[in-house]
Amino acid sequence: MTAADPVTAGGRGSRIAAVEVTPVAFADPPLLNVVGVHPPWALRAILQIRTDDWLLGLGETYGDEAQLARLQAVADRLGGHDPFDLHDLRALVADVLAQERGGAAAGASFGGMLDVDSALETVYSPFEVACLDIQARRAGVPVSALLGGAVRDEVPFSGYLFYRWAGHPGEPEDGWGEALGPDQLVAQARRIVDGWGFGSLKLKGGVLPPEQECAAVEALADAFPGMPLRLDPNGAWTPTTSVRVAERLAGVVEYLEDPTPGIAGMAEVSAQVDVPLATNMCVIAMEHLPPAIAADTVQVVLSDHHLWGGLRRSALLGGITQTWGLGLSMHSNSHLGVSLAAMVHLAAATPNLTYACDTHYPWKTQDVIRPGVLDFAGGEVAVPTTPGLGVELDGDLLGELHEQYLRCGVRRREDTVYMRSIDPTFTPNTSRW
Amino acid sequence: MTAADPVTAGGRGSRIAAVEVTPVAFADPPLLNVVGVHPPWALRAILQIRTDDWLLGLGETYGDEAQLARLQAVADRLGGHDPFDLHDLRALVADVLAQERGGAAAGASFGGMLDVDSALETVYSPFEVACLDIQARRAGVPVSALLGGAVRDEVPFSGYLFYRWAGHPGEPEDGWGEALGPDQLVAQARRIVDGWGFGSLKLKGGVLPPEQECAAVEALADAFPGMPLRLDPNGAWTPTTSVRVAERLAGVVEYLEDPTPGIAGMAEVSAQVDVPLATNMCVIAMEHLPPAIAADTVQVVLSDHHLWGGLRRSALLGGITQTWGLGLSMHSNSHLGVSLAAMVHLAAATPNLTYACDTHYPWKTQDVIRPGVLDFAGGEVAVPTTPGLGVELDGDLLGELHEQYLRCGVRRREDTVYMRSIDPTFTPNTSRW
Ligand SMILES: [Mg+2]
Ligand SMILES: [Mg+2]
Repeated sequence: MTAADPVTAGGRGSRIAAVEVTPVAFADPPLLNVVGVHPPWALRAILQIRTDDWLLGLGETYGDEAQLARLQAVADRLGGHDPFDLHDLRALVADVLAQERGGAAAGASFGGMLDVDSALETVYSPFEVACLDIQARRAGVPVSALLGGAVRDEVPFSGYLFYRWAGHPGEPEDGWGEALGPDQLVAQARRIVDGWGFGSLKLKGGVLPPEQECAAVEALADAFPGMPLRLDPNGAWTPTTSVRVAERLAGVVEYLEDPTPGIAGMAEVSAQVDVPLATNMCVIAMEHLPPAIAADTVQVVLSDHHLWGGLRRSALLGGITQTWGLGLSMHSNSHLGVSLAAMVHLAAATPNLTYACDTHYPWKTQDVIRPGVLDFAGGEVAVPTTPGLGVELDGDLLGELHEQYLRCGVRRREDTVYMRSIDPTFTPNTSRW
Repeated sequence: MTAADPVTAGGRGSRIAAVEVTPVAFADPPLLNVVGVHPPWALRAILQIRTDDWLLGLGETYGDEAQLARLQAVADRLGGHDPFDLHDLRALVADVLAQERGGAAAGASFGGMLDVDSALETVYSPFEVACLDIQARRAGVPVSALLGGAVRDEVPFSGYLFYRWAGHPGEPEDGWGEALGPDQLVAQARRIVDGWGFGSLKLKGGVLPPEQECAAVEALADAFPGMPLRLDPNGAWTPTTSVRVAERLAGVVEYLEDPTPGIAGMAEVSAQVDVPLATNMCVIAMEHLPPAIAADTVQVVLSDHHLWGGLRRSALLGGITQTWGLGLSMHSNSHLGVSLAAMVHLAAATPNLTYACDTHYPWKTQDVIRPGVLDFAGGEVAVPTTPGLGVELDGDLLGELHEQYLRCGVRRREDTVYMRSIDPTFTPNTSRW
């Protein structure tokens, strides 16, 4: 009875033998948003878990220093853990966080835009993904198979448009050009649609006054007739402005994402408009669902396995949204290929995830995975059918991005701080208009 | 690349090669309930699925003839299906039901007490369990590992007490004796606690006027100080009576199960009493959850993988009850060892299933599985740690119970019909008192 004979093996299965957390940095363009602008380097953490029978599982998450310290603290206690014991893994993460100064209640912040009361789900997530990668490799199936099986062979994504500068101040331009008005955004959209084939588009708003962002969306609608469009100002507007924008963009956008902050504000808007409201800001944890649903706050919830505690809890969110008749879409932060693989498996195995998913993927120029899988065709990514997540790390690329992390000096995502280094008068646009 | 090398195998994995549905009957005592009395034979269907790489998966469900026909119709279309493709399996079941005369909306009825609008979940369930059995055997892990891992090594069950006759009319007595009053029930409880070690007790009510059933519960509380007790009259009372009983039994029962029928009636009672209300009657499908939660109908939901669409959807119910702060317990129909194994794995891997589970298991005298696992000790069943469900069929026992099915002539569970054959004046006690 050996680990190589899983069909008949009973009792003790394979156990976690080694864990490695690698912080990486990759070049990020100057993408504008409600709290400022993306700094030149985006941070991620790459997680590798190896079992004593030499199965390797991968995970990826935020790379802020607070997150890294927590990941390492969990990693230090993972030896001997059964990669199938996910409930126990979650309890272990909770215990590690409880040992922290500040205790388990200490939350986490990501880019100044998203704050969660507890770091449990965000720290647990990459370990869960890596364990599912191992589980799936052990069973010889893709990760999607552990989530009920892929119901689609390709996962459609939405092209993500940004207001942006031509380059970081003092740095060479990246060739995408400036985008601060409708014509420039249409040109950006043309390039991203031509290059990746996206069948829907999302504009990150909250940067300019709402009238200008509405005009940009209308220009996109004119330039791409019939293309589903989304606008996401990340809570830049008051409820009154949100209602006005929703009325103007009725029939133009498929949904309006977080026009105003908070469950109460979103519910106030929702009661007055027909345009579906979506969120990845006021409903970002299980405990937000009961009050949000009771108040009929939103019509679409954006999942995000990094934030919601992994793939299985994101599937739970899928089941909840289906049960309550809510729409389901998917949120994205700047990410690399391990995350994209996880997103693709999750989306493929979530029947009611019928909206195209968000992704920042086309904006990054570097990766840590071996190329050849996860290519975009027609705006879609084919679901890997090989065992596990279906991606492998490239050691050279991982080393290169880790060296960039060491050299770049950035240790947390601070869009507002970076913006203020350029424009000292900047204040976040939250509820500004 | 062969099926025996799952770690590295990619592409096409194992496929379903053979499916067998075997109806069985086992002797059932004359247990009384709100709609009548258990007939002398209880029916179940045993499902065996074999893959082309010779993994065997087991399932068990209701054995009514309508259910059997549906199981066979699904079985006839399962060849070549990937046992990991559960979403597709569910779609296949829906399609099979849509082909039926009456269409997919045709529901299912179980014993005259439970009716569901659609047979989708009840037909899908045993196939899902059998596929999970196969998946787990392929990965070399117990089924609990596919549900996030066991969080408890033993699953506690509740001793199930019944009003009952000493024997079926015209048949030999079974030795348990008559139980129609408090003293006889206390004696029954003593025997079941002594024999199986149960640490909590449930009385199936709805048989006698509520004052008599309250007196029985009080007698049990006196005889077993501190023992958690439940009373389940299956909707025999009006809301007014339910409130009166709840006040009388406050501090005596851990919860009161389905005192009155329907979400509206239960919500009416819930608003007036402190005793937690539980249900396996008014919330038995996902679509019942939103209205039940909105009306604050119950404090405890009883899961049942046979009714809720398998183990993964029962886990979803677990996640929903946890998210909304509802208690979670587990319902039981008369069942054999394959179902018990599935119940044990599910309960072990559902962290918030903190109530002892119901089971009819001690009341049956025959089984289809090889003995040696699933024995009760201290009212608990140890969670199997061998691959899959951890149980195997005994061909001789299966054959014996199948022959009993053929000989007994019973083709559906009809407690009321059987009761009327003994007492022609009987009418169900639903909402009677
Ligand atoms: Mg957003
Ligand atoms: Mg009940």
